[in-house]
Amino acid sequence: MQFVDGQGDLTDRYEVVADTVGAGIEEWVLVSLGSGSRQIRDGEHRPIDAAVVAIIDTVTIGNQFVYSKRLQSR
Amino acid sequence: MQFVDGQGDLTDRYEVVADTVGAGIEEWVLVSLGSGSRQIRDGEHRPIDAAVVAIIDTVTIGNQFVYSKRLQSR
Amino acid sequence: MQFVDGQGDLTDRYEVVADTVGAGIEEWVLVSLGSGSRQIRDGEHRPIDAAVVAIIDTVTIGNQFVYSKRLQSR
Amino acid sequence: MQFVDGQGDLTDRYEVVADTVGAGIEEWVLVSLGSGSRQIRDGEHRPIDAAVVAIIDTVTIGNQFVYSKRLQSR
Amino acid sequence: MQFVDGQGDLTDRYEVVADTVGAGIEEWVLVSLGSGSRQIRDGEHRPIDAAVVAIIDTVTIGNQFVYSKRLQSR
Repeated sequence: MQFVDGQGDLTDRYEVVADTVGAGIEEWVLVSLGSGSRQIRDGEHRPIDAAVVAIIDTVTIGNQFVYSKRLQSR
Repeated sequence: MQFVDGQGDLTDRYEVVADTVGAGIEEWVLVSLGSGSRQIRDGEHRPIDAAVVAIIDTVTIGNQFVYSKRLQSR
Repeated sequence: MQFVDGQGDLTDRYEVVADTVGAGIEEWVLVSLGSGSRQIRDGEHRPIDAAVVAIIDTVTIGNQFVYSKRLQSR
Repeated sequence: MQFVDGQGDLTDRYEVVADTVGAGIEEWVLVSLGSGSRQIRDGEHRPIDAAVVAIIDTVTIGNQFVYSKRLQSR
Repeated sequence: MQFVDGQGDLTDRYEVVADTVGAGIEEWVLVSLGSGSRQIRDGEHRPIDAAVVAIIDTVTIGNQFVYSKRLQSR
């Protein structure tokens, strides 16, 4: 997974994350970091420190449109 | 949620947080990060890593007034 | 709480912390961050991520005197 | 363990990690940080905060090839 | 405790850590941060977030010698 910044631009920060929701390439996802990531299904006893918990549909900050899954997909 | 700095100015740092107290837009909130965030009601088994635990009324640093919910609201 | 740096100077970093030891203004305190903070009395099921665990009396680094509670108090 | 950045270059950041998978020198490994690291075999009651959970075979970012264990080994 | 960087030089970063192994001044130690630090003896219910888990004997990075407890001691 590659992090995005507040403007929705890709950053140089990457993290390996567990994924139980089936996220695809270029989809934005919501990630839980740390011990919370082991609350995903069957995650309790796995040595994970980051997990996808949701696929993001739309992001807006104030009135500013940042991301839409539909428009982003190609 | 958007972080503020020590002077009360908005920063570029954002975090997605669970909210069980019903905070509104532009309200300042107190957020618990990490495993503490799962101590909110019904949070124990959810994959969250940040949660609103209180809505802030007033912030002062020393004699310096930083924030008041009443004055901020529009 | 306001953080100090290695020289004992105040920094711009603040944190809201639980306090069960009754620290006063301008006192230096030792703070536990993260899940350790919930090991304070009655803290286990509270959504806290930082807690005062001691009031600091004196800090020296090598031969360098950094802080004394008695001299600091006004 | 020495961290690599997004381009696969070595950084100045090091971490001491528990290893139960037998990683060798110059191999890339996947590391779990924090409480997740104690989910490795027999790790639950050890004071570790980082553990190797896998040896990495290949890393690609988009179409860009970053690392292959086979090519890296000497 | 004072952190050292990858070259073995002292940094400006300090941390207060629990010590159950009896480390002395100027000794290099291995520290566990976060919840792992409470896995030291009798540490489980203490509000600690960092603990010495070992005293370091020798550190080498590749062929580069970084630290030896014997040579360092005065």
